[in-house]
Amino acid sequence: MTTALRRPRSKAKRAAAPRVRERLTVGARREQLLALGLTAFTAQPYDEVSLDEIARAAGVSRALIFHYFPTKRDFYMATLQAAIADFLAATVESKADSPLERLFLGLDAYFDYVERHAVSYAAIMRGGIGSDPEISKMVDSTRTHILEKIRVELPEQARDAPQLRTALRGWIGFMEATALDWIDHRDVSHEELKELALRTLAALLGEHAALFVT
Amino acid sequence: MTTALRRPRSKAKRAAAPRVRERLTVGARREQLLALGLTAFTAQPYDEVSLDEIARAAGVSRALIFHYFPTKRDFYMATLQAAIADFLAATVESKADSPLERLFLGLDAYFDYVERHAVSYAAIMRGGIGSDPEISKMVDSTRTHILEKIRVELPEQARDAPQLRTALRGWIGFMEATALDWIDHRDVSHEELKELALRTLAALLGEHAALFVT
Repeated sequence: MTTALRRPRSKAKRAAAPRVRERLTVGARREQLLALGLTAFTAQPYDEVSLDEIARAAGVSRALIFHYFPTKRDFYMATLQAAIADFLAATVESKADSPLERLFLGLDAYFDYVERHAVSYAAIMRGGIGSDPEISKMVDSTRTHILEKIRVELPEQARDAPQLRTALRGWIGFMEATALDWIDHRDVSHEELKELALRTLAALLGEHAALFVT
Repeated sequence: MTTALRRPRSKAKRAAAPRVRERLTVGARREQLLALGLTAFTAQPYDEVSLDEIARAAGVSRALIFHYFPTKRDFYMATLQAAIADFLAATVESKADSPLERLFLGLDAYFDYVERHAVSYAAIMRGGIGSDPEISKMVDSTRTHILEKIRVELPEQARDAPQLRTALRGWIGFMEATALDWIDHRDVSHEELKELALRTLAALLGEHAALFVT
């Protein structure tokens, strides 16, 4: 970005910032910054993300970002946490009545999410985004959360079988890999991906059918 | 890095390096440094890895490391490349005669590798090791390499079907996830993991049986 491009925004900022702050509630401002942050952090390496540019895009001062997020790292972690919370809300927090319905809706929502957030999904899942054990942990605990959502649907005697847990973890990895493959190639339909996921899950559960009989 | 820190190392190199170099061939020294580097880079964050400590463990000067690897980052990338080359040599470069035999041996070798190199495998696959699009690319191209090794075993008309490619990518993700689950829990046997992998692959190929009929 050139200085020529920046200057008008800075002027606009000086003039507009106080009024802008009146326009958005604290919650709405936070959400706006998180959305801008996610876009920036998933599009470029951490070190190259400019908080000045994000502040300018939001029409606020850089200091205001630090009011919401004490450090750049805090801001970065908060954008990922918000993205993961959105992802989970869209995919596994369905209120549908039956387990199968929840599964169908969840898979639909999953591939929808991947389509709408391809860049950030790929950046987070490929680990290209951070050199950070904390991020790995965040992604891993998301997987555990999804695993628990599936396990809770199973008969109690099946829930704690290590073989089934391994298979379900594998299935979550399978889903991630097919989603990343879709982002790279986009030559398989949403419906085909969903069917592939369902059939694979059915095959895995079928192998442990004995566990489902009390 | 301060000048004060650098000076003694240069002196040490001038005094000790010639004798050390006589003890190990260039190739053996490089391998020794790569092994020490891999252990260090997968055990701690990149910034905390001390080349001084690695040099000490190898009985060489820090300067000698830079003789082999011009920068810390070059060293780091080389350790990962060597680990990936080892991994591929152990798992997919089998000389066995039949495709099924290659698959069985490959799976055995895969879970053996995961067991022997649990820390570095987990660090690389979880992305905790580097904030680096280059590392993501390296891991991704390893997956592509494995995919190609599987696809080459398939009848030609099946090889380019996007649905089958997606399924096989999914299977590779499945394998990674079960391996990481094993590293965390170690409550499922090597044989069970192998059987799970084979059955899942069979189910995925079975779904595309039509592609195998000419």
